[in-house]
Amino acid sequence: MILIFSGDAKEKDIDNAVKKIEAIGFHPHISRGALRTIVGITGDDRAIPEEEFNQLPGVEQILHVLKPYKLASRDFHPDDTVIKVNEKLIGKGTFTVIAGPCSVEDSEQVETIAAFLESLKLKFIRGGAFKPRSSPYSFQGLGEDGLKILRHSADRHGLAVVTEVLSAHDVELVGRYTDIFQVGARNMQNFALLKALGRVKKPILLKRSMMAKVEEFLLSAEYIMKEGNSDVILCERGIRTFETATRNTLDIAAIPVIKRFSHLPVIIDPSHSMGDWHYVNPASLASIAAGADGLIIEVHPDPLLAKSDGKQSLSPDRFKNLFKQLEKISKVLEIDIQ
Amino acid sequence: MILIFSGDAKEKDIDNAVKKIEAIGFHPHISRGALRTIVGITGDDRAIPEEEFNQLPGVEQILHVLKPYKLASRDFHPDDTVIKVNEKLIGKGTFTVIAGPCSVEDSEQVETIAAFLESLKLKFIRGGAFKPRSSPYSFQGLGEDGLKILRHSADRHGLAVVTEVLSAHDVELVGRYTDIFQVGARNMQNFALLKALGRVKKPILLKRSMMAKVEEFLLSAEYIMKEGNSDVILCERGIRTFETATRNTLDIAAIPVIKRFSHLPVIIDPSHSMGDWHYVNPASLASIAAGADGLIIEVHPDPLLAKSDGKQSLSPDRFKNLFKQLEKISKVLEIDIQ
Amino acid sequence: MILIFSGDAKEKDIDNAVKKIEAIGFHPHISRGALRTIVGITGDDRAIPEEEFNQLPGVEQILHVLKPYKLASRDFHPDDTVIKVNEKLIGKGTFTVIAGPCSVEDSEQVETIAAFLESLKLKFIRGGAFKPRSSPYSFQGLGEDGLKILRHSADRHGLAVVTEVLSAHDVELVGRYTDIFQVGARNMQNFALLKALGRVKKPILLKRSMMAKVEEFLLSAEYIMKEGNSDVILCERGIRTFETATRNTLDIAAIPVIKRFSHLPVIIDPSHSMGDWHYVNPASLASIAAGADGLIIEVHPDPLLAKSDGKQSLSPDRFKNLFKQLEKISKVLEIDIQ
Amino acid sequence: MILIFSGDAKEKDIDNAVKKIEAIGFHPHISRGALRTIVGITGDDRAIPEEEFNQLPGVEQILHVLKPYKLASRDFHPDDTVIKVNEKLIGKGTFTVIAGPCSVEDSEQVETIAAFLESLKLKFIRGGAFKPRSSPYSFQGLGEDGLKILRHSADRHGLAVVTEVLSAHDVELVGRYTDIFQVGARNMQNFALLKALGRVKKPILLKRSMMAKVEEFLLSAEYIMKEGNSDVILCERGIRTFETATRNTLDIAAIPVIKRFSHLPVIIDPSHSMGDWHYVNPASLASIAAGADGLIIEVHPDPLLAKSDGKQSLSPDRFKNLFKQLEKISKVLEIDIQ
Repeated sequence: MILIFSGDAKEKDIDNAVKKIEAIGFHPHISRGALRTIVGITGDDRAIPEEEFNQLPGVEQILHVLKPYKLASRDFHPDDTVIKVNEKLIGKGTFTVIAGPCSVEDSEQVETIAAFLESLKLKFIRGGAFKPRSSPYSFQGLGEDGLKILRHSADRHGLAVVTEVLSAHDVELVGRYTDIFQVGARNMQNFALLKALGRVKKPILLKRSMMAKVEEFLLSAEYIMKEGNSDVILCERGIRTFETATRNTLDIAAIPVIKRFSHLPVIIDPSHSMGDWHYVNPASLASIAAGADGLIIEVHPDPLLAKSDGKQSLSPDRFKNLFKQLEKISKVLEIDIQ
Repeated sequence: MILIFSGDAKEKDIDNAVKKIEAIGFHPHISRGALRTIVGITGDDRAIPEEEFNQLPGVEQILHVLKPYKLASRDFHPDDTVIKVNEKLIGKGTFTVIAGPCSVEDSEQVETIAAFLESLKLKFIRGGAFKPRSSPYSFQGLGEDGLKILRHSADRHGLAVVTEVLSAHDVELVGRYTDIFQVGARNMQNFALLKALGRVKKPILLKRSMMAKVEEFLLSAEYIMKEGNSDVILCERGIRTFETATRNTLDIAAIPVIKRFSHLPVIIDPSHSMGDWHYVNPASLASIAAGADGLIIEVHPDPLLAKSDGKQSLSPDRFKNLFKQLEKISKVLEIDIQ
Repeated sequence: MILIFSGDAKEKDIDNAVKKIEAIGFHPHISRGALRTIVGITGDDRAIPEEEFNQLPGVEQILHVLKPYKLASRDFHPDDTVIKVNEKLIGKGTFTVIAGPCSVEDSEQVETIAAFLESLKLKFIRGGAFKPRSSPYSFQGLGEDGLKILRHSADRHGLAVVTEVLSAHDVELVGRYTDIFQVGARNMQNFALLKALGRVKKPILLKRSMMAKVEEFLLSAEYIMKEGNSDVILCERGIRTFETATRNTLDIAAIPVIKRFSHLPVIIDPSHSMGDWHYVNPASLASIAAGADGLIIEVHPDPLLAKSDGKQSLSPDRFKNLFKQLEKISKVLEIDIQ
Repeated sequence: MILIFSGDAKEKDIDNAVKKIEAIGFHPHISRGALRTIVGITGDDRAIPEEEFNQLPGVEQILHVLKPYKLASRDFHPDDTVIKVNEKLIGKGTFTVIAGPCSVEDSEQVETIAAFLESLKLKFIRGGAFKPRSSPYSFQGLGEDGLKILRHSADRHGLAVVTEVLSAHDVELVGRYTDIFQVGARNMQNFALLKALGRVKKPILLKRSMMAKVEEFLLSAEYIMKEGNSDVILCERGIRTFETATRNTLDIAAIPVIKRFSHLPVIIDPSHSMGDWHYVNPASLASIAAGADGLIIEVHPDPLLAKSDGKQSLSPDRFKNLFKQLEKISKVLEIDIQ
């Protein structure tokens, strides 16, 4: 932490701050100048409550040097985290494709997709039973019935299940059916939910809020990890910007940015970031090329009939075509696609 | 709803869509053109699942005519809603100033502020006992102890309490102490919480998410209203943009935009939108001038010692000075300030 | 300027940076820590080319303490700048209302508005003769003919002229007719134009780009001032965000932010920021209450017939009504409206 | 164009609009409904001045069906445009890598890079002689001397030159030295410049403004094409969002979006979008995978000594490494890299 004092700050104000820093066990370094005075603290400043300093008389600005997260940081865990789900690995050296419908609609729909995924030797199925919808008049999901359908078909076809949990209250229920808990973008800062998930023994797929900076995204992962669960998969799904040609703006740079500062695996959701199946292919290929550890994609047996997100869902044929292209690129990049 | 077909859409694709529209009981109007064909539906299109149309062959675009919310809309409720809390009114013709500390820290702090507010004849105190914080290492609030402190001082000084509830699970607990439930910006789309609050008998102060369009904000109000609670106070608290000079960007235009399309009262949070007490005064004066129904402001007996948001909190002296200016403007605008 | 070295930076890298700093005549202050080393420079760091430091081995981050602008800064010019146009003043203590049509369309239109403004004792007329339009198929303005019409009516009614100049090439031509040069938002970083305007003897009304931070806005003012023209009026006209309910998002906080860091007068353009006449009234009242030095508003004799921006233009009646409300507020705030 | 009338619009207002539409030679289609009335126009509505309709009494909203650009649209030119520069092609089936320093600094620097590019069999060199800088205190480029240096080394090494032109006034001068004119992001709506470039016989590399929607980007291309020059290369270089981890947010989806609606080639600038060399590699690989027609990258013999943008420049070694990876991916995708 660095305190910047304005040029007209009084000597006693600077002394006062220095004493406060020493009182909490840190060693301040003072650089006096004509225009500004700088007081630096070189220790682990995450422990210092900024609130106690930013209103001190004479303080013009407070700058931070260290990232505010710790367990999620590469500083504290230099090697990439690899997450085990059943016998499969997610992370370093693998590229995991998670696919399935936006919403679980009925058992036939899920069975069709599960069989299709097995035919491609894929290992993960996604599907929503509890759907967060902006409008109360939209389809809200099948609830526990949907979870049962998903589990049943997944088991028949040797797939692991990824499904969303909407509140801390539902963690126990959803946990009975899922292999990976998904936290949706709207819940990235639902701290009650994050804490509850920090206490389960299954991996968490945490989606980035469409308004969150990467730093805040990692702080939400930190909430989960701090409770004891370090199996967090980060998922970039587009941020909100002024551009309306796509549903959201895929922040492709989030992949290398996160990989630089964190050890957690990163996957991309091309369906929600694009909002239109026309663009899912290029967004997916861009993701593998940029170093993502996987994708979570919406596939529907008949997108025209989908109860939600049909516009952005791939048909099985289009998905198969995409998968072939991903395989080609994975070979050049020497990544193990699954 | 209006379907736009591309110039090369086939006749049978258009027929197919027309039949689908008729099948759900609507009457389509067809306008054929060389470059595009337009199929319009003039009834209440909120009931039509867009998903069933946006992937039909030949459909290039779907346009909406009606707003997606209903109960929150001025179309269905032309007069301004006025909300009663104890004997006080919030809405049309009044300007309500809700003030208090960001976090409840101890009983002395709250008592000081409560006495101060009473001395100004104000009627509402705010204070957080459950604090949503981006970092798990930040102060998280006093919990139920904080609620007790708040209730106690409020009762002594004839004030109504406004405090935040973080999850559906806490609604019953918080409801024992508060007069108005506050939903924070991060929870604007926590639908489990919204539904739970739709079933209580107290007003809800709903904050706009920093990424939400006004339309989505009103849809979140709709979630509460649809469950039976129509006492929703909307609170604009700044949206996230590229500008970093303030914590968020206060969308002052949200006041007249909401008033045009909805009948619900709108208040402004100048503290969170600005993030710096230097700007709270002008933001507050702008709000009353632009037609807001009130303010929710952070005041702390000693902002330098605040455990959270000290930088954006007003001292009692600065708040008193602001309140005098608000009174002056309220007289010219013939608004009843309280 | 503060250089932050990562924890594993080598001693010789730090030495190297220290020598570079001394070589350009500055005195570095070094604070070594376990996790990071901080090297601070407390002099006027605007003169230091950041490019020469940000790629040095071991440097993790460079932080700036001083604002990058100088002439536009309140540090160097503590008193508010007041600008004289003919006999009128713009700035501190006055509130200047500049009004007129978006585009000059014909002499009758301009004459009607000019007479109307005179009847309200206003002193400035605006109107565009060179129009920057996103589409090449939109009306592009009357050019010099428009300037003549504007000058003629302004002279008849004792008004000063504000009109836009689109390129350095046109400065001489436009200068023959205008009293204040307007630089549009799209040209805020047209540096050739800014430099040319820095050499004229008339005030410049500089509009903020819809993507510019306040700091960049002030740097554009600095371009003009550095060439010798310090009569710059800053105009906030809305920034681009994800919200589409208004044409742009009026950054009302820009008023106090600019006033804190700069001495230049600030006015607001409620017409372009709102994009809809329904919201021009509240935005204007918010602006005067927040401390703006004036407004630039679009008024058209018959907005329904306007060749551009009709939707956001006020009719004379609506404008008159707004002006009365502004007068009321100006009295309470003890501002001299003109 | 579609006019939406509110439910309480009067019959005569609708009749009035219908007559206006017929008067300008179009055929309106009317769909009356209880809540809204829709009047559709199915012809080429780009020719209709929206301004004449959006303020008519009763009109609530105007919707557009056709894109506002024409020459840049794939509707009017279904095949991809391929641009010839000397003997090289840019566009469909090729992937063009344009590289070089941000600024031309001296002849040795440029000669080093030019020789290096020739050694990789690359065909294009970039370099800025006129630099647009946010601060007037930053290095502004060598001007014509820089152009001479660039031309000289390009000729020695068989390279085509890409360099920026800042104003219409400089088109003739820059045209004496360059093969492709670059228009920077800040000038994307400098219409005087665009029109001047529409009259030259050389290709234009048009950068997207960091605030422009794709639609506005294509309208700027339209300005150039309308004057007769259809050789426009579009360059996405990042848009401005709330995320500050990268200099800008690379809108990777702009590639497929533009390719869907336009026939013009699209290249990516990974250097300006990332602002940090660490991320240039993944951003470049993402671009080729997503279907871009090329890259424009900053390379400097010694980025530590660069006078501008050193932080985001690749060293020759890093560039070579990137180029090898691009070659590998180009083979799988069957693209001819150059």
